[in-house]
Amino acid sequence: MAGPVRASEEGLIARYFAPLAGPGADGLRDDAAILTPAPGHDLVLTADAVVAGIHYFPDDPPASIARKALGVNLSDIAAKGAVPRGFLLTLALPDDWTEDWLAGFSAGLGEAAAEAGCPLLGGDTVRSGGAALIGVSMMGEVPSGAIVRRNTARIGDRICVTGTIGDAALGLRLRLEPEAAWAAGLDPALRAMLADRYLHPRPRLAAAEAVRRHATAAMDVSDGLAGDLAKMLGAGRSASIDVAAVPLSEATRRARAAEPGLIDAVLTGGDDYEILCTVTPERLDAFRAELAEAGIALAAIGAVTAGDDPPRFAMADGAARVFGAGAFSHF
Amino acid sequence: MAGPVRASEEGLIARYFAPLAGPGADGLRDDAAILTPAPGHDLVLTADAVVAGIHYFPDDPPASIARKALGVNLSDIAAKGAVPRGFLLTLALPDDWTEDWLAGFSAGLGEAAAEAGCPLLGGDTVRSGGAALIGVSMMGEVPSGAIVRRNTARIGDRICVTGTIGDAALGLRLRLEPEAAWAAGLDPALRAMLADRYLHPRPRLAAAEAVRRHATAAMDVSDGLAGDLAKMLGAGRSASIDVAAVPLSEATRRARAAEPGLIDAVLTGGDDYEILCTVTPERLDAFRAELAEAGIALAAIGAVTAGDDPPRFAMADGAARVFGAGAFSHF
Repeated sequence: MAGPVRASEEGLIARYFAPLAGPGADGLRDDAAILTPAPGHDLVLTADAVVAGIHYFPDDPPASIARKALGVNLSDIAAKGAVPRGFLLTLALPDDWTEDWLAGFSAGLGEAAAEAGCPLLGGDTVRSGGAALIGVSMMGEVPSGAIVRRNTARIGDRICVTGTIGDAALGLRLRLEPEAAWAAGLDPALRAMLADRYLHPRPRLAAAEAVRRHATAAMDVSDGLAGDLAKMLGAGRSASIDVAAVPLSEATRRARAAEPGLIDAVLTGGDDYEILCTVTPERLDAFRAELAEAGIALAAIGAVTAGDDPPRFAMADGAARVFGAGAFSHF
Repeated sequence: MAGPVRASEEGLIARYFAPLAGPGADGLRDDAAILTPAPGHDLVLTADAVVAGIHYFPDDPPASIARKALGVNLSDIAAKGAVPRGFLLTLALPDDWTEDWLAGFSAGLGEAAAEAGCPLLGGDTVRSGGAALIGVSMMGEVPSGAIVRRNTARIGDRICVTGTIGDAALGLRLRLEPEAAWAAGLDPALRAMLADRYLHPRPRLAAAEAVRRHATAAMDVSDGLAGDLAKMLGAGRSASIDVAAVPLSEATRRARAAEPGLIDAVLTGGDDYEILCTVTPERLDAFRAELAEAGIALAAIGAVTAGDDPPRFAMADGAARVFGAGAFSHF
């Protein structure tokens, strides 16, 4: 189990990660960092890991992998109405890791962290004994008591999502089946957009303040709209969703026109990293207007109803669908 | 990459981990928790992961693995003079995980967390695609500005360690070689003590306040005394250590008497989870007295000197040893 040094963890940290360290991290020369929320604020904590071969392709560019590992956590922070403050990194490397890979990874990590204003505060580097795993624990900040919870929607609330749904799921399919018939009519720009949505989450940090001011409940869509909606509602609440109102990109609209059955992938595929939330009907317009000012589209896709049934998705042809245990899961 | 649900992550969380959730974690029903330090306090953040086959034996009892995963982080928190407040868990399970294993793991985790007053606040469960990995990010609390740093020792400070050194390293050796000649004279109780020191870190939480009040620099000993001492000193500082003053348990003293060469394993083996720290000579007695009141022995083993050489270990026979790149590393 124990053995002599193979590669200096201290050396790797000093070279690749110390330049990313934020205040409180003491240049990563210590085993711990300090962080203090602003007066009158709570820290919001979340942790999400990505694993090679499960959450990303092992041959994805290392900078993209870093961006995904950070993005899936930033997305959680934003959905809680919080502002990111910093993160801890647990990097488990396979035996065949290379310095090139690590250089690309740390460069991408640093870029994504700087964009989000979310510096590295510490972490751990270990051998994984198998696939690479990148675990991030992220700290954000909200005014005291203002975190937007997941299970707090009320019957009658409108259900909303930011951006567009399903692009990442189709981007993943396209990567697995580049010759898929449904993609034949997509030009290179549309194909690239879908691929990019899978590869690079775009956490909705700019939506956080409006979510905090208006949403009665919120979460990010990471495991598919249908499954995440069911999780958000919890016991005693259901929903009716107008599938025609679910916002789709031009690429996804075209793909669906070519193969209508793709709507299942759109509604249950993962990796959207949009914000799913509820608002009271009276707040909907103000919420939408504030998000529009932040450059983020908001679509109202249904309403919270009473009951313990899974959410009902009303299709354009009048049929109603439910998506139960078939929801996407990374686990 | 994506697939249908194989096991419900939500179900596992509700069954095994929700009972461990602390205030602010909302019963683990959300993707985030809140935590706020007491007024006038900073949060102290640390992250350490343990991997099956690297940091522990895959067939270790799952409750012991949980205790180790938590203990190595609690040890870092204590060495910074902080009090634990909570932790996030990243649990990466191999494909052959069982509910029995998870039940044992969560039971051990809950017990260790309760003992330390450090509840579970959230986390993530993923498939590892290989060995099990348990990543913990832990939050502690210190009075503002009072964190005890690693690289702040001053020339002339005394170097101290809590407890005894080398037991875990010998416990590991004994496990790998139960018939080792050096262990022939150890009775079952002494053998069990060594084995236990390897299996179950005993984080020095009770030392934290005295460390905070007196130490000029501190870290926990996880990668071996010699290597960790070199890390603590940093540039421009060295140390002279009196090996005869390094505190050894009865088991380790006997083992070393049988095989004098074991002193290398004692000084460079990992997993001690004692606190290594420095104090000014004037503070040594008060520091030792406060620790004694907390039931913790403190040994002064040397002094901080000027220079960039590795620490010198003066052996009983008058020889001086240095331990450079041979230090133990988990990486």
